Amino acid sequence: MKALVYHGPKQVSVDNVPDSKIEKATDVIIRLTTTNICGSDLHMYEGRTDVAKGKILGHENLGEVVEVGKAVDFIKKGDRVVLPFNIGCGFCANCERGLTGYCLTCADPTVMPGMAGAAYGFAGMGPYQGGQAEFLRVPYADFNCLKLPEDAVEKERDYVMLSDIFPTGWHATRLANVKPGESIVIFGAGPVGLMAAMSARIQGASQIFVVDHKADRLALAEQIGAIPISSSDDNVTEQILAHTKGLGADCGCECVGFQCFNAAGKEVPNMVMNALVDAVKATGYIGVIGVFIPTDPGAADDLAKKGQIAFDFGKFWFKGQKMGTGQCNVKAYNRRLAELIHHGKAKPSIIISHEIPLAEAPDAYKHFDNRDEGWTKVILRPAA
Amino acid sequence: MKALVYHGPKQVSVDNVPDSKIEKATDVIIRLTTTNICGSDLHMYEGRTDVAKGKILGHENLGEVVEVGKAVDFIKKGDRVVLPFNIGCGFCANCERGLTGYCLTCADPTVMPGMAGAAYGFAGMGPYQGGQAEFLRVPYADFNCLKLPEDAVEKERDYVMLSDIFPTGWHATRLANVKPGESIVIFGAGPVGLMAAMSARIQGASQIFVVDHKADRLALAEQIGAIPISSSDDNVTEQILAHTKGLGADCGCECVGFQCFNAAGKEVPNMVMNALVDAVKATGYIGVIGVFIPTDPGAADDLAKKGQIAFDFGKFWFKGQKMGTGQCNVKAYNRRLAELIHHGKAKPSIIISHEIPLAEAPDAYKHFDNRDEGWTKVILRPAA
Amino acid sequence: MKALVYHGPKQVSVDNVPDSKIEKATDVIIRLTTTNICGSDLHMYEGRTDVAKGKILGHENLGEVVEVGKAVDFIKKGDRVVLPFNIGCGFCANCERGLTGYCLTCADPTVMPGMAGAAYGFAGMGPYQGGQAEFLRVPYADFNCLKLPEDAVEKERDYVMLSDIFPTGWHATRLANVKPGESIVIFGAGPVGLMAAMSARIQGASQIFVVDHKADRLALAEQIGAIPISSSDDNVTEQILAHTKGLGADCGCECVGFQCFNAAGKEVPNMVMNALVDAVKATGYIGVIGVFIPTDPGAADDLAKKGQIAFDFGKFWFKGQKMGTGQCNVKAYNRRLAELIHHGKAKPSIIISHEIPLAEAPDAYKHFDNRDEGWTKVILRPAA
Amino acid sequence: MKALVYHGPKQVSVDNVPDSKIEKATDVIIRLTTTNICGSDLHMYEGRTDVAKGKILGHENLGEVVEVGKAVDFIKKGDRVVLPFNIGCGFCANCERGLTGYCLTCADPTVMPGMAGAAYGFAGMGPYQGGQAEFLRVPYADFNCLKLPEDAVEKERDYVMLSDIFPTGWHATRLANVKPGESIVIFGAGPVGLMAAMSARIQGASQIFVVDHKADRLALAEQIGAIPISSSDDNVTEQILAHTKGLGADCGCECVGFQCFNAAGKEVPNMVMNALVDAVKATGYIGVIGVFIPTDPGAADDLAKKGQIAFDFGKFWFKGQKMGTGQCNVKAYNRRLAELIHHGKAKPSIIISHEIPLAEAPDAYKHFDNRDEGWTKVILRPAA
Repeated sequence: MKALVYHGPKQVSVDNVPDSKIEKATDVIIRLTTTNICGSDLHMYEGRTDVAKGKILGHENLGEVVEVGKAVDFIKKGDRVVLPFNIGCGFCANCERGLTGYCLTCADPTVMPGMAGAAYGFAGMGPYQGGQAEFLRVPYADFNCLKLPEDAVEKERDYVMLSDIFPTGWHATRLANVKPGESIVIFGAGPVGLMAAMSARIQGASQIFVVDHKADRLALAEQIGAIPISSSDDNVTEQILAHTKGLGADCGCECVGFQCFNAAGKEVPNMVMNALVDAVKATGYIGVIGVFIPTDPGAADDLAKKGQIAFDFGKFWFKGQKMGTGQCNVKAYNRRLAELIHHGKAKPSIIISHEIPLAEAPDAYKHFDNRDEGWTKVILRPAA
Repeated sequence: MKALVYHGPKQVSVDNVPDSKIEKATDVIIRLTTTNICGSDLHMYEGRTDVAKGKILGHENLGEVVEVGKAVDFIKKGDRVVLPFNIGCGFCANCERGLTGYCLTCADPTVMPGMAGAAYGFAGMGPYQGGQAEFLRVPYADFNCLKLPEDAVEKERDYVMLSDIFPTGWHATRLANVKPGESIVIFGAGPVGLMAAMSARIQGASQIFVVDHKADRLALAEQIGAIPISSSDDNVTEQILAHTKGLGADCGCECVGFQCFNAAGKEVPNMVMNALVDAVKATGYIGVIGVFIPTDPGAADDLAKKGQIAFDFGKFWFKGQKMGTGQCNVKAYNRRLAELIHHGKAKPSIIISHEIPLAEAPDAYKHFDNRDEGWTKVILRPAA
Repeated sequence: MKALVYHGPKQVSVDNVPDSKIEKATDVIIRLTTTNICGSDLHMYEGRTDVAKGKILGHENLGEVVEVGKAVDFIKKGDRVVLPFNIGCGFCANCERGLTGYCLTCADPTVMPGMAGAAYGFAGMGPYQGGQAEFLRVPYADFNCLKLPEDAVEKERDYVMLSDIFPTGWHATRLANVKPGESIVIFGAGPVGLMAAMSARIQGASQIFVVDHKADRLALAEQIGAIPISSSDDNVTEQILAHTKGLGADCGCECVGFQCFNAAGKEVPNMVMNALVDAVKATGYIGVIGVFIPTDPGAADDLAKKGQIAFDFGKFWFKGQKMGTGQCNVKAYNRRLAELIHHGKAKPSIIISHEIPLAEAPDAYKHFDNRDEGWTKVILRPAA
Repeated sequence: MKALVYHGPKQVSVDNVPDSKIEKATDVIIRLTTTNICGSDLHMYEGRTDVAKGKILGHENLGEVVEVGKAVDFIKKGDRVVLPFNIGCGFCANCERGLTGYCLTCADPTVMPGMAGAAYGFAGMGPYQGGQAEFLRVPYADFNCLKLPEDAVEKERDYVMLSDIFPTGWHATRLANVKPGESIVIFGAGPVGLMAAMSARIQGASQIFVVDHKADRLALAEQIGAIPISSSDDNVTEQILAHTKGLGADCGCECVGFQCFNAAGKEVPNMVMNALVDAVKATGYIGVIGVFIPTDPGAADDLAKKGQIAFDFGKFWFKGQKMGTGQCNVKAYNRRLAELIHHGKAKPSIIISHEIPLAEAPDAYKHFDNRDEGWTKVILRPAA
């Protein structure tokens, strides 16, 4: 089969590789019909992680079931399914509590003591191949597949967002504990930040501020119902205080991660977190879903090399703020978000900028990595 | 009346000062019968804050109502009451949601934009005098007084702990989201850490680890039902992992604050927070009630001067941990904790080491500030 | 001043009565600019309660502050305020936890052991006069007044709904524990049922079913975004099962109360509750804000006289359902719902059918009590 | 193998039946070492349900894994495991949210539209055989088995209570939403009521009232730390009000079910529920885990035949109470309760009155069904 393979920093190609096949009786194989490139694929693409050469990338996957293991009960051949990017067993101490992003069974324990969580085609998240390919093996299929309703093909561009960015954006707002009628400030208008804005709107936020330096992304944020704020302005906090009676936003989201650039194009890993402490009110929650990593040898900054940031902890404590972090437990949200799509209450496909065949994926990686104007979200069509 | 007055770093004396008096119709005056010295008084005593000279210290107060303002409805002359260290109005947007530690009405807004919260005898927490004195003015008395039952005098040494450290220790465990059957690691076996251990026990924790370097405090922790771990050991994390199947404690509490000393006696402000990230499992909560401050000009360390710590944010994020911080909203807990004391289910007085007249307070400050062996908790008897 | 006074079953008139005046230093007086007639006023109007003759009715009140007690700190003369229908003290064990509908201080303890809760112009809810009048005394004014922003007059028809029906409808959905993406079935398309539908929509419900027998109200429900279902159909449950994969709605709301009529016009008090047990899925929550009363001597049915219903408890238990009931704690919601109105995200005035001077209130009571076509919601303008 | 088989009302015998065997690759077979008789077995024993003749009873099961299906990953031959009485698939919409007592995959959908939930050896809960036998087939074994630690045999009498009554008693207190420091009233001192009392104590309740008419059970309640109240007294409510400042207990539990007898020995199905409405304070929660059934043809009372009770709904609503019901989701609690047993914080075996071989089970059913003095809880030892 064809698949997009990582060969080293900024080197990916679509190669012929062995077909995915059933390895355990609880597996299924899906034929991918849509698979996206994610911002976190770029961390690997750029060589900022220790992903192994030869890895097939791709963790935002949707397709049709073509083969079913003997111990699979619910999922049938021909079902259209969307897959959470995280892989869970369904029965460990974390999965049973819904913490499917922190599966103890599927994790690679050599990464870190107490490490938890697995994903398709991801550095440090177990041996699983990705889905930027024609076929994909899905472990624990009854648990991991979300079966789609009769409009699966018609709304495929929306449903594929359930694999990662829509639930991840939603998770950011849940970590931020936003409540109907509250204000929320979201730093980062990439795909996840935009999905966080859409999530906050669906949940009845009264004011949604989105901060970014790219005009095209801010325009999308506005279209989604947010108040755009340019991070090139030097008074971001002041603007938010002015909108919120001087108190700060009720809560906030970090949707940028460790590769956070200031107006001068320099990576400043603590910039957004400290801005959030300023922009969010006392007692407010901050949800952090931008990726931060335990060690970052490629970083310019000494603290960053050790995975540390110089955090305004005194102010954070004085304001009595709270913070939640980490990868989204996609299964905590995907079933209900599918209902929103099915009943016409959410349309996450609004952010798609490019829809291309798998063969063109290497070129798309280049543009997306360059943060080229207009390359918001790329979806690949392996079956096209 | 007599009162303990701050005159400058390490200079306090018991002086004659003007009597406390009713200033608003919603005030009462109490005659203090017990008032404690708190670890956070030492931050002021040492000159690490900008508390004004002339301030009466003391925010852990219990006494008898001797005068009642005309608009006070519920509290009567002769009532025995214990006062939360925080002062709330009862009607602002924060107080109405139970965030009484972040009152917008009583706060001093000049301290910080969006500043919230007030307290008796405290730096940066409004103009209110403290209770290490014969009398104290209590604003919004119906809201701030907790009326005690018929065993008020008999159990006064327990009830006085409701002013601060028992609810604050309890708050640490709530921020840590401990659940019955879970394990919890508490850094710091000062009065608040010990109260956190007691709180965890009452809530049904299965294993309570308390980490400190002082043997006398660890002995108290053990007496309360905790597993003592010496921070002088170089394998604190390993010990906790060994007790918890290699996963880490289910949750953790920071009960030390910015004045955190390593084994060599050096202040290392990020030491405990980073140890908690290691010792707590992936997805676990960390409750931080040790005080951290927005700027600390007296600190040795450049980051600390700016109120920053070098925080292991990458690891924290990768483990998907959560964190809650800040001063305790005492009223969120004091009524139910009083029931526990009244019905014999909690005995926080266990940690009292010294019970002395107000006149001896300056000497007690010296010992307590020196962290002298055995000076765990001092209560003052102004009426004695 | 002029006020609408209850003189006996179906006898109300606008009379000259003594002016409202400050009785305690924590009171304010407001000049009413809008005050509504509520469905629960009809229980009193019809003589189904023991409301005293001479009572001024009216608990949905908005106006301008004209006089301020000496111990009122935050509310000022000239402020535009909307009042929760419930009256709370702000400091009792219930108010401090946000249960302001169950105030222990303001309640009339003679009604029932453990009775809690007070309201303006309401049977069994304390001695307070209502606001269908020119002026109203507001106790504990700092706690009970919600100060409105600069668009107070412009959006007065929306803000007045914060006194009762918007928060009450919202409360129904919170008792039903609706989550974004879920389906909800609401029995009753009166003002509160319609507000529940609007609340569910704002919170991101995927399907909102509203059941009623009146076509005009179902049309309003549809306009709000709900799927209307006629209770005249004999297959209401089947329709809901068909929309929900045979499982039932995720949750449900009772917005009818004890005066529940079947298609033949007979009062059948258990009809809606048992229909909800059928229409809601196993494990679902049911929120009950329609009023039920402890004794109802005027009822036709023997159980109903004793305040009982023949409830399908076996089925309810087998399905593992949950239920929440009772009057709304308006202050739990009104501040955030005001933000939704202020920022243009909610427009509860959509349900107003009549806007008339106070003098015409007696006539409006007649039409509203007859359930006349088109009399959905009446607002009175005492100052007009 | 030997197994206890139901042959008709009050007719059970230990028969030779075909051995349990692996039917699907996700099954395991366990050799039972302890299996209990439960109060809900008596509903079947007495013929009050439609359980099929030939059914093996027994849903409280603990044993050793002797055979493992090919798709079982985590559970190994030789593991000691305790099984939740409910059987879940782990991947349906309910199981994935932790509602494992309402599994949609394992349920028998012919029982009721929207029916959910399965169990071993239980009427209306699917085709699964029970464990009062030498061997038992466990479906979805990785999900349903709780693997026990190294003290599995030593504390087997405690761990076996994790199959049902300890989590069920705990669930009662969670449905009642008890909080540390609160009071709770529990009606019924059978095994589940006693476990509810133990659960409340572990969670830090300040006062635990247990109401029953049997002196031996009340004595056990007192031993567990509760305040015993005889239901033979005619002033049960008054006693509870006297202990709770006239307000009522903070919350309550129904641990009796539809077979509720008054002092005269007559079945009065609404007696306990209405007593709870009186004894619990306004705004309190009531947890109902005593079994109620949708139809009860054998009942004396016309309402009861239809599965209805005459419920004091008016008073319940006026007090703004809440209610949760239904079978316990054992997996929501069993892992943490096992930690409490393992670390010596809970000892549910305290209630065991009889420990006998499987062969004597029929005789034990007779005594237990007669409610004979001292027959609190029977455990069977099939391997003995």
